[in-house]
Amino acid sequence: MNRDTASARPADPAESRPSRATVGRLSLYLRQLEGILGQGTLKVSSRQLGQAIGITDVQVRKDITYLGNLGQPGIGYPTRDLIAAIRRVLCIDREWAVALVGVGNLARALLRYKGFLQRGFRIVALFDADPSKVGERVEGLEVHPPEKMREVIAATKAELGLLAVPSDSAQAVADSLVNAGVRGLVNFAPVVLRLPAHVSLVAVDLTVQLEQLAFQVQHTDVD
Amino acid sequence: MNRDTASARPADPAESRPSRATVGRLSLYLRQLEGILGQGTLKVSSRQLGQAIGITDVQVRKDITYLGNLGQPGIGYPTRDLIAAIRRVLCIDREWAVALVGVGNLARALLRYKGFLQRGFRIVALFDADPSKVGERVEGLEVHPPEKMREVIAATKAELGLLAVPSDSAQAVADSLVNAGVRGLVNFAPVVLRLPAHVSLVAVDLTVQLEQLAFQVQHTDVD
Repeated sequence: MNRDTASARPADPAESRPSRATVGRLSLYLRQLEGILGQGTLKVSSRQLGQAIGITDVQVRKDITYLGNLGQPGIGYPTRDLIAAIRRVLCIDREWAVALVGVGNLARALLRYKGFLQRGFRIVALFDADPSKVGERVEGLEVHPPEKMREVIAATKAELGLLAVPSDSAQAVADSLVNAGVRGLVNFAPVVLRLPAHVSLVAVDLTVQLEQLAFQVQHTDVD
Repeated sequence: MNRDTASARPADPAESRPSRATVGRLSLYLRQLEGILGQGTLKVSSRQLGQAIGITDVQVRKDITYLGNLGQPGIGYPTRDLIAAIRRVLCIDREWAVALVGVGNLARALLRYKGFLQRGFRIVALFDADPSKVGERVEGLEVHPPEKMREVIAATKAELGLLAVPSDSAQAVADSLVNAGVRGLVNFAPVVLRLPAHVSLVAVDLTVQLEQLAFQVQHTDVD
């Protein structure tokens, strides 16, 4: 469902890049590690981390090799160093400014979701084509009309965009965001977007998720 | 991020089961095919389908082998037959009753999302622990207290559950849903759930999606 624009390019031998699956697991480790550090635990083993997210310690150690030299597996990894290394590899050791288009219920849920800011994703700009919403303030941010997209995105330096618009306007909104300088999009609309190669896309299609779930349920025997 | 409980079981030689990736692509084909049929096009080629979702026609033909014998690749597949076969394989040639727990903004967005019902997922029951929400009607459905979960889920025959609750209550709510008879869960809370083997889980973690996007953007050169 996701399009990894990078996968079409030749691999750079100078850097060993983790796969999408590894990147996903690094995110999960990070969440666990922050909890572990919050409890005051300064060392963590691959076994602990693996158990916490339900995978083998072999896989954990393999993933951790992407983070550079972080001590010996036998005696555990320093929690703080692991966190810092994962944040660096995931490129979230910085803040990302995010524009959100389509100010409906989904947008309100996204705006109130505390996890984004905790991980360095700050929603800085809102847009909606509905004149009755333009000018409204939602969670402290003003809703701008689409005509101001280029100007507001330049001013707020938004690099990522969240598309919470209906399917029939998703492509046009995506094009506008890209023209305004956004380099990565999360699309919540159930429609396939066509984007230039330099723009990254993550599609969050809830119907596809439900279909996968239904398929699993149907193929899992009740004990 | 997803846990496929089925993958831990020995393969059944009597049925060749499509992978999770194939299941995801079948969902995307289905969406395209419904659009194609809506335009009155009764035959479709693997090339058309592949172009529509940005993959090769070889992959499309490979995926279509899971659907049984559907005519010859050279002359195109009958659109209606493809749709019916995909719905059958995905187990959405029936309706699935869905319970939704946590009636906040995300829940309201999910309730208004037309795509679920179009694909046979009907939200039939709402639950919230907040007494001020209990008894309220949202999109025509009454909000029930958690104590009534077993009773309401039995009455509505809900098989799937959507968890739109805060992280710190997600595990308890998941346990209640499973005890009430739900067999598959979509978890929107950024927390890893532990569930019995007969329960399927799809995790929709928006922060992980944003982290993957940031990683891609960081590793994609602007032309």
